[in-house]
Amino acid sequence: MNPRRGPLDGVFVVDLTRILAGPYATMLLADLGARVIKVELPLQGDDTREVGPFIEHETGGRTSAYFTSVNRNKESIALDLKAQADRAIFEQLVARADVLVENFRPGVMGKLGYGWAALHAKHPRLVMASISGFGQTGPYRELHAYDMVVQAMSGVMSLTGPEGGPPVRVGVSIGDLAAGMFGAIGIQAALLERVHSQLGKHVDVAMFDGQVALLENALARLQVEGRAPQPIGTRHPSITPFSVFRTRAGSIVIAAGNDAMFARLCDAIERPSLASDARFASNALRTQHHEALQIKLEAALQAHDAQEWVARLRRAGIACGPLNDVAALRDDPQVQARQMLVPLALPQGGTLSVAGCPIKFAGESPPTLQPAPRLDEHRAALLAEIGLGA
Amino acid sequence: MNPRRGPLDGVFVVDLTRILAGPYATMLLADLGARVIKVELPLQGDDTREVGPFIEHETGGRTSAYFTSVNRNKESIALDLKAQADRAIFEQLVARADVLVENFRPGVMGKLGYGWAALHAKHPRLVMASISGFGQTGPYRELHAYDMVVQAMSGVMSLTGPEGGPPVRVGVSIGDLAAGMFGAIGIQAALLERVHSQLGKHVDVAMFDGQVALLENALARLQVEGRAPQPIGTRHPSITPFSVFRTRAGSIVIAAGNDAMFARLCDAIERPSLASDARFASNALRTQHHEALQIKLEAALQAHDAQEWVARLRRAGIACGPLNDVAALRDDPQVQARQMLVPLALPQGGTLSVAGCPIKFAGESPPTLQPAPRLDEHRAALLAEIGLGA
Repeated sequence: MNPRRGPLDGVFVVDLTRILAGPYATMLLADLGARVIKVELPLQGDDTREVGPFIEHETGGRTSAYFTSVNRNKESIALDLKAQADRAIFEQLVARADVLVENFRPGVMGKLGYGWAALHAKHPRLVMASISGFGQTGPYRELHAYDMVVQAMSGVMSLTGPEGGPPVRVGVSIGDLAAGMFGAIGIQAALLERVHSQLGKHVDVAMFDGQVALLENALARLQVEGRAPQPIGTRHPSITPFSVFRTRAGSIVIAAGNDAMFARLCDAIERPSLASDARFASNALRTQHHEALQIKLEAALQAHDAQEWVARLRRAGIACGPLNDVAALRDDPQVQARQMLVPLALPQGGTLSVAGCPIKFAGESPPTLQPAPRLDEHRAALLAEIGLGA
Repeated sequence: MNPRRGPLDGVFVVDLTRILAGPYATMLLADLGARVIKVELPLQGDDTREVGPFIEHETGGRTSAYFTSVNRNKESIALDLKAQADRAIFEQLVARADVLVENFRPGVMGKLGYGWAALHAKHPRLVMASISGFGQTGPYRELHAYDMVVQAMSGVMSLTGPEGGPPVRVGVSIGDLAAGMFGAIGIQAALLERVHSQLGKHVDVAMFDGQVALLENALARLQVEGRAPQPIGTRHPSITPFSVFRTRAGSIVIAAGNDAMFARLCDAIERPSLASDARFASNALRTQHHEALQIKLEAALQAHDAQEWVARLRRAGIACGPLNDVAALRDDPQVQARQMLVPLALPQGGTLSVAGCPIKFAGESPPTLQPAPRLDEHRAALLAEIGLGA
């Protein structure tokens, strides 16, 4: 079933995860060549099979585009982990696995008889990863979490929004996605240690911790400035100019990260005197006078439209770009050249374009993506493989 | 110098990266136990040593909190890669390295004589990772990029902002951070493949690709709905209720991801009739009538303040939480319990609390974090180690 190739060829992953954080982690592993067996609840499967948007098929029926996006390259088997026959199948799969990934709330695996201590005693080389809202320890360990909750509690939302306005949610589920990425990093680290130790580890990744790890300089600003940073719209807190600017038609981003680039910018917009204006003589001064600078820059940018300015500023060696929506992104030549949008076959016909794997290896073509599986699609093949076939 | 322990113990990384994306990748590797030698420009060092916020020392001088945040656990040596004596030192370090990481623009390493083909011929086991704005291939490969540029071009900003309003920047540098995380994943994958192949690979990660890989269901919605999704404030596009809600004092987030949790929510706020209201009978219907539902919920939430509601809803098993700023986050008991804020010693005295490593291993204490290095701090020790000591 797995004609793909990648650096993780030969790594066997049993995947109990649902929704987004866990499936994103195992998607990354599968993209890199690991074989991922997605174990789903009988009849209903992963919750996101019923989450929109849906692709309606001419032949009737529908496919969740949400599910399809993060479950390519996986094999599916439906197992009831409370039923004895299915438990035997699950245990045969785990016996062959290098990695077991789950994102239940802490304690659920133990109640099923598959807690870390028991699994580690029986399969000392197995790596287990638990991805949860708040982690396996601490006072919040039992609490429910979704992306929105950890974005809000971590302060990530408090930094995001219009200047002076209320915080907004980051428009992608960064709470889930970051946890999935940290999960994949932890799993690979444990596999690398196992090469020497011959022993597996239990990776414990929390969505909440993952958001704290993305706070970047906000924690430092809190401590140095003595107050919590607030939303500032499209600006960067400590680099200027680094924001969205209106042109005659449309807006562009300009990110002039140092004095040399700022000087080139002033030349390119035909306002060379700005570079010698005392208010704008250093990055710190430009940040202090960001409003005055914005007015000057936007006045000059009235000379052309967004597309023309992007072309001119790129020629001048200035970091800039259009403010794209995802429709404009889809048509971007770099996205095409990097194969970052890949058509995936759907089980009932048709295709859905999904994001390609962002981890490329020079001189290698990205592996062909396999479709997301139908629920229980690979049962017969998997049972035959583990010697439990009918 | 490296008393830490972690799964990547024994992995030797030579790190040419500056600013944020590359240093975040190598910070993750160092947090996991790898030994990271940060090679910096003589005299000035990493650009972010001069980026604020700064901690002013009583003894005079200052330390960049920005630099400190992402360069803990690393050793520093200042080398001029255009000077023959320093090149010899660099080449000795590379000869011992498992991994070389750089985030120059494509082509710079080749001009220095350290392109992938040359390094791979000389050191076939070396893994090299190049983290750049747009990648090593494609029409944009030579263009400058900063976080802001890839957030804007990828569409991530187009999904983030108040409903009906202009897009805003995600308040953390997710363009850089995601690229750093994908870089760490690619490096570890290459190290795992090397166990079998005995050969290194060249990992090619682009900040732009990394943002596309985070678009999640926005790409699916574009294709299914035929139009590009726009900012929707604090709501989730396809799950309701999943947003920020005003209480009598303060706001909270509530994320009721399924019908059972919605029913528990209606009970907990003493509005059980909402659960049987035909407009709110399914997630799809609740999403369609989200404005009406928001009004009903906020009316009920007027009964108590934010803190009281969080306590009540948690007791009822509903995913919810306070809308924290980073000052509130700092005092959160789960952050303390998970050791997600760790005091780092500063070279001139004092401490700065930085985010801990979000990749935990059950039963193991997080490793002690070492301070970020002073520029060239480890030159003498490194020269002695490679046999070039004075």
